[in-house]
Amino acid sequence: MKNAYEELVDHYDKVNDLAHVYSIAAWDEASMMPEGGGESRGRALATLGVTIHDMIADKKVGDWIDTCSNLNLNDWQSANVREMRREYEKATCLPSDFVRRQSIAQSTCEQAWRFHRAENNWDAMAPLLTEVVKHAREEAARRAEQTGLSLYDAMLDGYEPGMRSEKLDSLFAGLKDFLPGFVDEVIERQNTNPLEPMGNNFSIEKQRELGIEVMGVLGFDFNHGRLDVSHHPFCGGVQEDVRITTRYTTDNFVESLMAVIHETGHAMYEQGRPAEFAGQPVSAARSSGVHESQSLLMEMQACRSAEFLGFLAPIIRRVFEVQDDSGAWSNENIRRLYTRVEKGLIRVDADETTYPLHVILRYEIERGLIEGSVTVEDIPELWAEKMKAYMGIDTTGDYTNGCLQDVHWPASLFGYFPTYTLGAMMAAQFFASAKNAVPGLLGHIGNGEFAPLLAWLRENVHGKGSLLTVDELLTQATGEPLNERFFIDHLKARYG
Amino acid sequence: MKNAYEELVDHYDKVNDLAHVYSIAAWDEASMMPEGGGESRGRALATLGVTIHDMIADKKVGDWIDTCSNLNLNDWQSANVREMRREYEKATCLPSDFVRRQSIAQSTCEQAWRFHRAENNWDAMAPLLTEVVKHAREEAARRAEQTGLSLYDAMLDGYEPGMRSEKLDSLFAGLKDFLPGFVDEVIERQNTNPLEPMGNNFSIEKQRELGIEVMGVLGFDFNHGRLDVSHHPFCGGVQEDVRITTRYTTDNFVESLMAVIHETGHAMYEQGRPAEFAGQPVSAARSSGVHESQSLLMEMQACRSAEFLGFLAPIIRRVFEVQDDSGAWSNENIRRLYTRVEKGLIRVDADETTYPLHVILRYEIERGLIEGSVTVEDIPELWAEKMKAYMGIDTTGDYTNGCLQDVHWPASLFGYFPTYTLGAMMAAQFFASAKNAVPGLLGHIGNGEFAPLLAWLRENVHGKGSLLTVDELLTQATGEPLNERFFIDHLKARYG
Repeated sequence: MKNAYEELVDHYDKVNDLAHVYSIAAWDEASMMPEGGGESRGRALATLGVTIHDMIADKKVGDWIDTCSNLNLNDWQSANVREMRREYEKATCLPSDFVRRQSIAQSTCEQAWRFHRAENNWDAMAPLLTEVVKHAREEAARRAEQTGLSLYDAMLDGYEPGMRSEKLDSLFAGLKDFLPGFVDEVIERQNTNPLEPMGNNFSIEKQRELGIEVMGVLGFDFNHGRLDVSHHPFCGGVQEDVRITTRYTTDNFVESLMAVIHETGHAMYEQGRPAEFAGQPVSAARSSGVHESQSLLMEMQACRSAEFLGFLAPIIRRVFEVQDDSGAWSNENIRRLYTRVEKGLIRVDADETTYPLHVILRYEIERGLIEGSVTVEDIPELWAEKMKAYMGIDTTGDYTNGCLQDVHWPASLFGYFPTYTLGAMMAAQFFASAKNAVPGLLGHIGNGEFAPLLAWLRENVHGKGSLLTVDELLTQATGEPLNERFFIDHLKARYG
Repeated sequence: MKNAYEELVDHYDKVNDLAHVYSIAAWDEASMMPEGGGESRGRALATLGVTIHDMIADKKVGDWIDTCSNLNLNDWQSANVREMRREYEKATCLPSDFVRRQSIAQSTCEQAWRFHRAENNWDAMAPLLTEVVKHAREEAARRAEQTGLSLYDAMLDGYEPGMRSEKLDSLFAGLKDFLPGFVDEVIERQNTNPLEPMGNNFSIEKQRELGIEVMGVLGFDFNHGRLDVSHHPFCGGVQEDVRITTRYTTDNFVESLMAVIHETGHAMYEQGRPAEFAGQPVSAARSSGVHESQSLLMEMQACRSAEFLGFLAPIIRRVFEVQDDSGAWSNENIRRLYTRVEKGLIRVDADETTYPLHVILRYEIERGLIEGSVTVEDIPELWAEKMKAYMGIDTTGDYTNGCLQDVHWPASLFGYFPTYTLGAMMAAQFFASAKNAVPGLLGHIGNGEFAPLLAWLRENVHGKGSLLTVDELLTQATGEPLNERFFIDHLKARYG
């Protein structure tokens, strides 16, 4: 006879099995599926998604969870039940007729966004987005009622458990003070050192080879994962078989390679989650912010360091069969290429100094949308105003590269944007601690030796799964909760 | 309020959605998955498989089916309910504790087979296979009791509904009479015309290009499917997104290309199944034999015809950048290459004249195993005896290339082997009718025009799904039930 905890574990093993298949089919949709398969795939994933949701929200799960309070559980088991309760409450919070209505509003808006964005057509998007926001506010109200949080915090907590807007305001205030002036200084300085163009005909096959080689250097386990191509780079699949993607253009290898490194950071988190709890909620990645910290730690902290770029430059020359190591192909020019600061319209193209400004702008607007102080009609004006204030760019009338550039709002992902910059800050904080803990870490990285860094991450982050709260995780690993100082210090050291 | 039929349709739409995801994940396992993902994938697919099985075997499905007898259904709807009943009975026939025991015996045997086959180790396999046969006989007994069929027919009916061993015996008797002598004659004749070797360094990239081009000529819809690589070629995926695979070796392009053509035949059946009943049992492929008929019609009937090979030869020369169209690369040598008859040990490598002998041998042994007149210990001797009698080859002591060569028995697929040759016979019969119905069909094929053939197949086979029984399907399309004469006439015309 199994006790309630054992029942939960068995149940979640099954949930995880179905989630495994879901995840592979979703990866396939983005990387393999011919267009004509889209309609039936959409239906198939929706049905499987409902099946998984119903298993998580099953009344008997709630009963087992309640019964667990009478059991003597160890730390991992208790944390497992805590995470199951969290998932159970998230899944049972919204009545299914509401979920259905919301999902229609959302998928209508998201599909329309694909062409209205290209058409710069704000007027057509506004009413659709209004519907999405209306449902998101209803969702926030229900989640706020269940959790006792404020409206926006109830949404934010879904991606970043434990984070509150009050804390975000304080973290972001430090960045808002510092960044705009800093960015101007850096740009002015870099302008005296223009980049030398490297040509524009890089074979995709060689770019792929380069990506695979660098993934190996970083410590990606190819027995448990793959690299493929999709329209937007992402990390998917399952812990035992992590699927990352990138995209290639022949006129530029820089972005594709950094996308590979970024996704490899995500992937190694997945590959390093606690295997003895595989499939259980306690083995899951801690939060969206922590996940992003692992990608940005690899991409920004480790792999745009002068040390790593010095290691990378000869590999790049070898792969593209360039003999000359001066001028455009010199170590120095390659380093400059990978640490270039530019103000731009597009978040996903931003460098690490301007990226947080894109995020803060979105956070301020979406918080207003959820709290009711901002309406969809206000978005274009607010966007233009904030782009002017934070970045000095006039975006009036350009919706395509302005407030319509991201899928997040059409997809109703309110509360997600802040996690990008939380990730950047955590990455700086983790990396600073790793450097203290591992003597000569940057020297190792400059030799292409990532094992010491990976070991530190496995012990302090990956291997913890969701055992700890985010605050506990950061405090145990770095000695203090999240502090924007590490990120600012990092930017000063690299670009100052 | 839905009626029972509408409830069934809705239910099967959901079953189909889950089966869709299962099918894509199974394709992924064979073509994409790194080895380290295997264990968790196996568990995930097993769990999803049980979920699907439980939905098909749900008691309310049985009730709805019974209630349907009171409804006024059209032909398609009635056939849909008939197929649902068939699936329901198949799924409820075996108690779940038996299924569990059987599945363990089977997967133990199948996994052991992978290395014992390579080791030529019959002694290690015999007890494992005995366990599988014991369970298969219990399965046969239960299915026989439910269906009123004999033991072997109850298994055969699972793959080829309506086929009986009495009918098989009569079909196969015609082939056993004719083939051994015929094969000897053909080989003797072909020996006077030896093949000229074409080299042994064919780039995989070019072989893939060639395959893609030929798939396009045949009518494969790339908006609803893909070509990839796997250890054994197969056709998987779903109707809206058919995934076929092949394998490549650089020393030979012949087999890879014919595997592509074979799987394209399967794929076009899938792509042509009735879309208005997509996901419903009545839209399913009619039987394993009919499925094989569609692959063999493309591979053997259409694409090894002198007409098609005359069309193909210049494409082959162009793809492999060969200027010289004489000698090894001449149309004549390429035609000889694709119509070579040889006696061999391995079924999957056999040409169309010797293949049925491999099948008949297996049929005779497996029927005895299921009926109890043959034991596992008898297999090696029987195998050697029959190989000698039908093919004139001594295989004593060679289990690797003898009775251990196929996965079917370890995997408990008793009743499946005959469908290969049923497919070959149906292919000949369908193609003979298509030639009568479509004036100048071989001329079209010789110009690379497959639309007229495909239109005939869509109308007479693909578009019928499971509306008709196999006998009805053949009779409506060709004027009579299955008759081995068409296949024999075909062999005589091509090789005689």
